Amino acid sequence: MSAAILVLNCGSSSLKYRLFETPSEALLAEGIIERIGEPAPHHRHLRYRGAEVMSRMERDVVAPTHREAFAHMRAALDGAVHDLVAIGHRVVHGGERFHQAVRIDTKVERDIEALAVLAPLHNPANLLGIRLAAESWPGLPQVAAFDTAFHHSLPPLAHRYAVPEAWYHLYQVRRYGFHGLSHEYVAQRAAAHLDRPLAALNLITLHLGNGASACAIRGGRSVDTSMGFTPLEGLVMGTRSGDLDPALPLHMERVTGMGWHALDHVLNHECGLKGMTGLNDMREILARVAAGDEAARLALEVYAYRVRKYIGAYFAVLGRVDAVVFTAGVGENAAPVRAAACAGLQGLGIVLDEAANARATGEVAAIGRPDAPVALLVIRTNEELHIARQVRALLGAD
Amino acid sequence: MSAAILVLNCGSSSLKYRLFETPSEALLAEGIIERIGEPAPHHRHLRYRGAEVMSRMERDVVAPTHREAFAHMRAALDGAVHDLVAIGHRVVHGGERFHQAVRIDTKVERDIEALAVLAPLHNPANLLGIRLAAESWPGLPQVAAFDTAFHHSLPPLAHRYAVPEAWYHLYQVRRYGFHGLSHEYVAQRAAAHLDRPLAALNLITLHLGNGASACAIRGGRSVDTSMGFTPLEGLVMGTRSGDLDPALPLHMERVTGMGWHALDHVLNHECGLKGMTGLNDMREILARVAAGDEAARLALEVYAYRVRKYIGAYFAVLGRVDAVVFTAGVGENAAPVRAAACAGLQGLGIVLDEAANARATGEVAAIGRPDAPVALLVIRTNEELHIARQVRALLGAD
Repeated sequence: MSAAILVLNCGSSSLKYRLFETPSEALLAEGIIERIGEPAPHHRHLRYRGAEVMSRMERDVVAPTHREAFAHMRAALDGAVHDLVAIGHRVVHGGERFHQAVRIDTKVERDIEALAVLAPLHNPANLLGIRLAAESWPGLPQVAAFDTAFHHSLPPLAHRYAVPEAWYHLYQVRRYGFHGLSHEYVAQRAAAHLDRPLAALNLITLHLGNGASACAIRGGRSVDTSMGFTPLEGLVMGTRSGDLDPALPLHMERVTGMGWHALDHVLNHECGLKGMTGLNDMREILARVAAGDEAARLALEVYAYRVRKYIGAYFAVLGRVDAVVFTAGVGENAAPVRAAACAGLQGLGIVLDEAANARATGEVAAIGRPDAPVALLVIRTNEELHIARQVRALLGAD
Repeated sequence: MSAAILVLNCGSSSLKYRLFETPSEALLAEGIIERIGEPAPHHRHLRYRGAEVMSRMERDVVAPTHREAFAHMRAALDGAVHDLVAIGHRVVHGGERFHQAVRIDTKVERDIEALAVLAPLHNPANLLGIRLAAESWPGLPQVAAFDTAFHHSLPPLAHRYAVPEAWYHLYQVRRYGFHGLSHEYVAQRAAAHLDRPLAALNLITLHLGNGASACAIRGGRSVDTSMGFTPLEGLVMGTRSGDLDPALPLHMERVTGMGWHALDHVLNHECGLKGMTGLNDMREILARVAAGDEAARLALEVYAYRVRKYIGAYFAVLGRVDAVVFTAGVGENAAPVRAAACAGLQGLGIVLDEAANARATGEVAAIGRPDAPVALLVIRTNEELHIARQVRALLGAD
């Protein structure tokens, strides 16, 4: 029986999982149970052999709570031949406490719980996943990998806001950054592709998915990132506004009286591409642009313009840039977005090869002109594999 | 008797004025009445002949309302020998309605009043100044010059936020930008100094005063600026936070229940340099840095780092930059801030000449290495003169 590591991402109404063989890193199975505690929960499960899908299962399930969802996952995984050696959990917020992945014990659980004040939607769900996994596989080593940890290296000049010092000391107000697992993973892949040590590289990584963030990486360490105290700040996203005048929420409350909860909901779920066009999916936006839709064209322009400004800002932060990396759903698949984001950046040494951009596919693709000073790469992200590697490194070190 | 133009900046508790001879542009007199309607109103008035101060008056006055302040100003100005031909008013918010300075009539007054929803502290005070000036000098032409007007040329991709479209159409939510009179004035001076047509230049102008903003200028037209819907967004300022995660006000309300008004006050009056150090004056910060104070050093670093990021972002926006211009109190006088803002930007063609930076003085000073691709300039701003010029151009055109 092959040894395997299970990676879990437990959300407030969903449970995602991937099972990796170790040390080969082959994906054995993956699945998702959605709409837990909502009408019509649904379970999808795939088993792999090599790169091939060996079997596919999809069905509605009964899952009023995460406990039933865990039972469905276990039942599906029992079909895979493996010897589970550890479980890795994606945990959103590690605050200033967690600088890297850690083996979970009671103290770690308590700390993750305490950090729920900073991530009230995510950390409690992540913690529930940790507890149910301990119930399901008692005694198995469990590891927490944090979405914030890679950004612990931000220097104070990048992570402090110009707010009252007490807000930092009493309320932990600072830039944390998110998507750290993805930024770190693609940075390592970029170094491997460029065949240069990561420690010698200055990179700008652009994670453009439903959420979106940019990261400035010097010598393998995150030195700035666009998401901040929460995942709302920074780039335009599917349904989140990204950067805004911070006085705007106060103004909207003053003129509409809509209240905190409604405002919070709008900023996170009714803004971004969706706010500008009614659509939150970049593929649909691009189809509309092709059909001549003006609102879609403007949304695409604003989206790409903000990416361009962050590339410029991080160029100034890094002083010299070796490569710009696009990743995640939009970054990996939307060639017109990549083209728009790179437009007019010749002065920074960034020159797209349009043909290479149009045909980019696979794990790593180079899309810049070979003679330009800055390499442009499209890299498929794999946060789950990155977590599995952290689990393995941590257990190997024990 | 020489002809003169009076320029007024009427705030909620202050009245500033400058009297310019026209067409010579010589400053004849200037003054300020402060603490109107507050305890101990105070009036300071200076008369000039050439560059020399001819007389100086300073005294406490009775000014329970702006009407008495106007009477004090008139009395002081009557000492200057001149023939007043027009009055120019600085008006903060021109919304999407005013693209340039305009001759004031009843319709213009009504529009400025309607725009008070966007500038509730400033536009009503500006309008009061207009009405009291009309009472004081009936029949004299009056002109409104707007702090937002220069930025009317921002393209939609720069001025639109990724918020629900209705917020733009119903609530006029967009980036307006401020300090336009200063950005435009120093851009024109930069072109004159470089002896090149403004239309051929790409500039980044940095107005660093109590308020602070950056502006990207292509061919004399503002194409992006860091202040947004309000003057809170963008660079770190004396007491304003500048850029923040827009979720932060909502989070602080959730954890402290401090309320909108208190939050608005803190973000505008207790943040920025003051929030980080207790001091809002860059001169005091620099003195503390020299004395080894850590909080002051961090505040300076954060301040300069944000300027650097905007320089990079606007480099990406403009594609090519001919000059970076520092202006306003901090920009004109704080050599260490300029040095920190330019540090590490050699990759953008920005290389400071440290000796030139240290000795910069006068109306225009060049502080970059002569062989660097980007000129670095320190230019003394003069928003009042810029208003007087707009008044003259407008009346000359009648």
